[in-house]
Amino acid sequence: MESFPQSVNHLIDQFSKLPGIGRKTAQRLTFHILSLEERFSQTFSNALLNIHTKISHCSKCHSITEDDPCTICSDEGRDNSIICVVENPYEIFVFEKTNSFKGKYHVLGGVLSPLDGIGPEDLNINSLIDRIKPNTEIMLAINPSVEGETTSLYLAKILMEKNIKITKLARGVPVGSDLEYIDQATLIRAMEGRTSV
Amino acid sequence: MESFPQSVNHLIDQFSKLPGIGRKTAQRLTFHILSLEERFSQTFSNALLNIHTKISHCSKCHSITEDDPCTICSDEGRDNSIICVVENPYEIFVFEKTNSFKGKYHVLGGVLSPLDGIGPEDLNINSLIDRIKPNTEIMLAINPSVEGETTSLYLAKILMEKNIKITKLARGVPVGSDLEYIDQATLIRAMEGRTSV
Repeated sequence: MESFPQSVNHLIDQFSKLPGIGRKTAQRLTFHILSLEERFSQTFSNALLNIHTKISHCSKCHSITEDDPCTICSDEGRDNSIICVVENPYEIFVFEKTNSFKGKYHVLGGVLSPLDGIGPEDLNINSLIDRIKPNTEIMLAINPSVEGETTSLYLAKILMEKNIKITKLARGVPVGSDLEYIDQATLIRAMEGRTSV
Repeated sequence: MESFPQSVNHLIDQFSKLPGIGRKTAQRLTFHILSLEERFSQTFSNALLNIHTKISHCSKCHSITEDDPCTICSDEGRDNSIICVVENPYEIFVFEKTNSFKGKYHVLGGVLSPLDGIGPEDLNINSLIDRIKPNTEIMLAINPSVEGETTSLYLAKILMEKNIKITKLARGVPVGSDLEYIDQATLIRAMEGRTSV
């Protein structure tokens, strides 16, 4: 017997496919689960199945949700005049945690990346344009990567034609950081965007 | 909406229960699975269920196996006269990887730990004694922790009465290590157990 029983290997294979989990960690997790009661695996297994059967995408903002439209889109108390555009649903929850944004969201579903074959038609851009009203403000909150910045520029160019207010997140020195360790690009942006005290 | 949809939270909870996986990693893994096709979750879910339904313990050596007795116990080509005693099934696979041991194994299922309420009656000691024949050698390969060493001593004392050969793994300097970083206890054992060149 050179390797584990087949069903043990199967579970190790599945864990290994997850990001940041190598073969050794996958083995440790699998043997941990083997040492637990069967009930744990059943609950885990159900949670895995439910995530695909219960979760769908909101037809308005494309976020993940169990009900359509999602709780944010159907919340009458939120400000309809500002739409925060993010890359992925996960980022909505990052904004929600701040408890400071009371507008709506729109999930692009990625960024423009010609090398990976992702063009404007693969992103939720048309549905964003459909949501625009004369007084809408679009706040671009796309990750400041090269592809993210390109996507922001592309969106800004398209939205400009609609004669609406387009904003993007301020670039600058993060709160609690040390100037010694700030990269040059961020420092230049922080100087350019300096505010009066 | 302050938190994720319920089914997303459920999967995050399950991942968080695994050793070495914190809340943040669990979120990352869950959102990764959300981005994959449903087929992945189904395979993963089946692998989790199978591990408990298909895997049982070998009635002879107590290792994990899909067939009883396990492939090692039922292998006629292996040496019946030497039994390697390990703590957990996982360690059998560590030995098997070396391709150097052709005897049989016996899984204790833990080590003596009075503080955790684990006494001799909780370990597979009686079934080990039942496997002893006049010419059997017992090779103790229990982890060199405090509890492991205590268990080794306890087993050695019991097995001594059977008038059989009892051995344990050599303690010494690991191959490829640097003497500068070896702890004192290991170095003392390595000197005590020195061999002639």
